[in-house]
Amino acid sequence: MSSAAAAAAPEPRPVRFGILGCATIARKVARAMLLAPDATVAAVGSRSEEKARLFAADNGLIPAADDGLRLRLHGTYEALLDDPGVDAVYLPLPTSLHVRWAAAAAARGKHVLLEKPAALCAADLDAVLAACDAAGVQFMDATMLMHHPRTAKMREVVHDKDAFGDVKLINSVFTFRANEDFLQNDIRVKPDLDALGALGDIGWYCIRVILLAVDYELPKTVIALRDPVKNRAGVLLACGATMYWADGKTATFNCSFLTNLTMDITLVGTNGTLRVTDFNIPYQERSAEFTVASKSNFAELGIGCGPLPSKHVVTNDLPQEALMVQEFARLVQNIRDTGSKPEGKWPAITRKTQVVMDAVKASIDKGSEPVEVVS
Amino acid sequence: MSSAAAAAAPEPRPVRFGILGCATIARKVARAMLLAPDATVAAVGSRSEEKARLFAADNGLIPAADDGLRLRLHGTYEALLDDPGVDAVYLPLPTSLHVRWAAAAAARGKHVLLEKPAALCAADLDAVLAACDAAGVQFMDATMLMHHPRTAKMREVVHDKDAFGDVKLINSVFTFRANEDFLQNDIRVKPDLDALGALGDIGWYCIRVILLAVDYELPKTVIALRDPVKNRAGVLLACGATMYWADGKTATFNCSFLTNLTMDITLVGTNGTLRVTDFNIPYQERSAEFTVASKSNFAELGIGCGPLPSKHVVTNDLPQEALMVQEFARLVQNIRDTGSKPEGKWPAITRKTQVVMDAVKASIDKGSEPVEVVS
Repeated sequence: MSSAAAAAAPEPRPVRFGILGCATIARKVARAMLLAPDATVAAVGSRSEEKARLFAADNGLIPAADDGLRLRLHGTYEALLDDPGVDAVYLPLPTSLHVRWAAAAAARGKHVLLEKPAALCAADLDAVLAACDAAGVQFMDATMLMHHPRTAKMREVVHDKDAFGDVKLINSVFTFRANEDFLQNDIRVKPDLDALGALGDIGWYCIRVILLAVDYELPKTVIALRDPVKNRAGVLLACGATMYWADGKTATFNCSFLTNLTMDITLVGTNGTLRVTDFNIPYQERSAEFTVASKSNFAELGIGCGPLPSKHVVTNDLPQEALMVQEFARLVQNIRDTGSKPEGKWPAITRKTQVVMDAVKASIDKGSEPVEVVS
Repeated sequence: MSSAAAAAAPEPRPVRFGILGCATIARKVARAMLLAPDATVAAVGSRSEEKARLFAADNGLIPAADDGLRLRLHGTYEALLDDPGVDAVYLPLPTSLHVRWAAAAAARGKHVLLEKPAALCAADLDAVLAACDAAGVQFMDATMLMHHPRTAKMREVVHDKDAFGDVKLINSVFTFRANEDFLQNDIRVKPDLDALGALGDIGWYCIRVILLAVDYELPKTVIALRDPVKNRAGVLLACGATMYWADGKTATFNCSFLTNLTMDITLVGTNGTLRVTDFNIPYQERSAEFTVASKSNFAELGIGCGPLPSKHVVTNDLPQEALMVQEFARLVQNIRDTGSKPEGKWPAITRKTQVVMDAVKASIDKGSEPVEVVS
């Protein structure tokens, strides 16, 4: 940036978000928008204005947004997309609706923060990404853990070739015990809304952290674990897969709606071992931990071993979802206010996650046959 | 026991162990025999008397056993087996020699404490077990973790149907980073000595703890992970497998000589999650931990989750290997002194472990085809 441009740059205006759909997860992200600097909730769109109003009232949006911008309530998704006072859309609709509404948002020149899973398949995602690309808007999926400073710190540890060596083995588990109401009524068990079920909802995170651990190098082959659990409508309630890389790395993940809340990732490298037990949603909002053991060995005679894993504690000023909103808003401001291009890293990471998820789904559909991952 | 018998029972005489072979692991077990009550090292047998003498001197056996029993040194395995002052043989020879020498020991009326892996295949093991059965001697494999009070405590936690529910998912990892000398020269990489390599040496423990977690219910099917690593002689340096039970439980394990020392077991139940990171050899000799989380859930809005896993600390008066010797000695005393029958639980557990290991090996040999587990 030239010094003239720097001198001319005004205090950046906040990014005006429109929330498209009032899903439960939108409550968390709405709160994040209130917490994040450079972001404001400008509008809420739902299937009725009344729903939008209730959501806004329930989530503290009306007073908080009443800072000269005034929150607007829209009774249709279209109306929100037509709102000229909206820079960016946060889209927490059921996955089956993503391709339509995310592409429509991009076509209206709105930046797109899209809930995960990004799409039902890579072809759908590609339609969204093409629309974003054509419109020059930023795309990012709402995988919050990506923005936690713990995640960055873990990557730093794993990249230490002396202390950690080369990652060879990854295990990830994300399960939670859904109650009967969830298993009967939640959108995540409905074939027309979230057909990927547990794979899309939580397997997504396992795939993402696995890719993160290997610097987004795609596995060559994916083989689903056998005996996935499906509901009567065929939606996945529990499944898993093993991924194989060309250089011999392997990763296994399990996701399930049927067992106790567990969010583990274990990375084993040639020289080190890293473990997290709350990788997706830290136990605490402002502080998160992981442990690392490096160059571990048996003691003399194999009596005891060490060193004990050392604990790393990472604090964060804002919760990870607010850091996500902040990062997205920063990119949008750059585009809107200084003519920058969209950051290509985010759609690329989303697409890799989707491509692996597609391969897992294909392997499940083929009775756990190996499926080659096509980038 | 009748009161007359009780009155007549003298203070039980220690069990007189003969150590058959001077492997490195025998040093740890010799120490355990010195620590355990009711056990004494009566003899050491090696391929030369000089080797036996060196081993005895290096491991403090000569003074410790010089309590009226006098340690005897034998220059052949046969001589040790012929020693009438030996009640029980501890056999840490390379796996390929187990069937011959364990069966020979049983045939001489010696009780058999056999290093793991018990055998190269179930057929070999069956020959050993048949010999023990015919001779009425106790058989036990030297899987030390079985005797740690932590293991019993973990089983208790997992059996709590309210707090833990039903085990559905198990992950186990046992890897250590072998150095170049090990990878070139250790018996565990030699096809004629320990042909199962990492699978036999450390995969054995993964299989055992997985079986332990499901009360020794055999899986129906085993599928090896693809791309096992072998040395030039075809011995496994790294491999893994997934096991499938008829009721939908699954377990995955990884074992490797090529990555950082990691000894994890993670059990996920419908209501609880249990984690250990030093399951086979506790970090500390006299105290060991595991963590349990029960009925975990997301906090309001999915911001945070809890409860934090709670730590269980279990202390032990004796190291687990001494507790193993003590338990084995107790069983031998019962047989020797009171005419009890051998405890059938131990050979049964060994055999189940072996049968699963055989299925893993068969699946590896078939390029990761599913293999049914035959009991």
